[in-house]
Amino acid sequence: MRFSISVPGSLARQLDRMVAQKGYDNRSLAVADMIRAHLVEHHQQFGDKEIAGAITLLYDHHKQHVQAVLTDIQHDHHEVIIATLHVHLDHHNCMEILAVRGKAGLIKRIADELIAAKGVKHGKLTVTSTGKDLPT
Amino acid sequence: MRFSISVPGSLARQLDRMVAQKGYDNRSLAVADMIRAHLVEHHQQFGDKEIAGAITLLYDHHKQHVQAVLTDIQHDHHEVIIATLHVHLDHHNCMEILAVRGKAGLIKRIADELIAAKGVKHGKLTVTSTGKDLPT
Amino acid sequence: MRFSISVPGSLARQLDRMVAQKGYDNRSLAVADMIRAHLVEHHQQFGDKEIAGAITLLYDHHKQHVQAVLTDIQHDHHEVIIATLHVHLDHHNCMEILAVRGKAGLIKRIADELIAAKGVKHGKLTVTSTGKDLPT
Amino acid sequence: MRFSISVPGSLARQLDRMVAQKGYDNRSLAVADMIRAHLVEHHQQFGDKEIAGAITLLYDHHKQHVQAVLTDIQHDHHEVIIATLHVHLDHHNCMEILAVRGKAGLIKRIADELIAAKGVKHGKLTVTSTGKDLPT
Repeated sequence: MRFSISVPGSLARQLDRMVAQKGYDNRSLAVADMIRAHLVEHHQQFGDKEIAGAITLLYDHHKQHVQAVLTDIQHDHHEVIIATLHVHLDHHNCMEILAVRGKAGLIKRIADELIAAKGVKHGKLTVTSTGKDLPT
Repeated sequence: MRFSISVPGSLARQLDRMVAQKGYDNRSLAVADMIRAHLVEHHQQFGDKEIAGAITLLYDHHKQHVQAVLTDIQHDHHEVIIATLHVHLDHHNCMEILAVRGKAGLIKRIADELIAAKGVKHGKLTVTSTGKDLPT
Repeated sequence: MRFSISVPGSLARQLDRMVAQKGYDNRSLAVADMIRAHLVEHHQQFGDKEIAGAITLLYDHHKQHVQAVLTDIQHDHHEVIIATLHVHLDHHNCMEILAVRGKAGLIKRIADELIAAKGVKHGKLTVTSTGKDLPT
Repeated sequence: MRFSISVPGSLARQLDRMVAQKGYDNRSLAVADMIRAHLVEHHQQFGDKEIAGAITLLYDHHKQHVQAVLTDIQHDHHEVIIATLHVHLDHHNCMEILAVRGKAGLIKRIADELIAAKGVKHGKLTVTSTGKDLPT
């Protein structure tokens, strides 16, 4: 489907520069990707929608109990946590990436709980879709 | 400035629904906002700082060549891609999460290249730190 | 529970040396681990028993179609393949480790099919238990 | 030579069932066979050759300190442990799969140390090659 949009000239020029820098073949492919990205984010607000995604955590495993707490939270929700990828960054720092899938509301609550745990330096929930209702 | 783009019909319909739900007066205003949001992210210069993070990709592995292209890009940069976690969401859809570590500028370029690859429905780079200079 | 066993003297001495080299606190802990390891293997012959495990594959992703074939097989069985960890060893070689869980007979068939795929240099199924009926 | 070992009652009962199913005349003969099988594996000298592989561990994360011990060992060797995939099997049981790469002797020592850790129910080192000197 073809449709046309009107945007300020300077914005269009910046768009074209970004499209080239990111290596897209053409402007339509880039804009379609942006629309999909915003759809994914838009769908997050509906708590019951099924999403997939990643929770990224950074912590020092020497901090008292942090790992035990994170593992307990994860086992409490093992039905939505597919698997966890643990990277030993150095002697102290761990990056843990949880692949998750489930209702958006629950996933958000689990992410909040993990990120708020004492000893976690940084955490982020990255939401994508399960792909079922996202046209290519 | 007016320009036209072509996107799949089902994507255009989902766009129009979101535009209405978000309360935009028209499609052009919404798309212009999306472009601006992506420009802001694109312009964040990361430079030479070492980061760790995750690149999350969603794609249909049946789409011609998409997996071969993604694997080629990843092997070209195997020194910064620690490991990739692949989740088979259903018969068609794959979620792939790459644990990465390296100079921010390079990581961002790799993420851009992967996300722009034809057949990738959605992708996102989540940046965290290597933890070294991030106090708990 | 305490029970005593009788073995040749030379075997007992070699056992004690191995127990020390492997870093066990005492002989009982080491023998208990051996018993558990043999129970896990013994249970594999019963096709209907639920097992967990890992399938390790080594292949050159440049070989025609090998990755597409492996992904197709995996998606056909996405209900027993929890997630796949992909490591880019160098420009050519990939190590892929599949975390699996399901009936022993099915897991073995999937492993056989993956390992037999053209282009796979080496593959192995490592079976463990789901832990439910394995006493510590 | 006679010596006595102490193992959990439930493990002793499962051992006796297996001993009967396998057709051994008595428990001692079966345990002696197990010891010999482990000695054979233990004596395989791997030396300096670079290998890639997977270490699979099964444990109950509620057991005192087991996770902290395993993480400490892994961080001590973070240069050969590429990444760890953690699967939450149920409320108690964890399967952890470590993707490793390095000198065979070191990898074997790390695997021995992890598997011998108190609380680990079952563990196994699966060795593959880095693919460099393995023709397809």
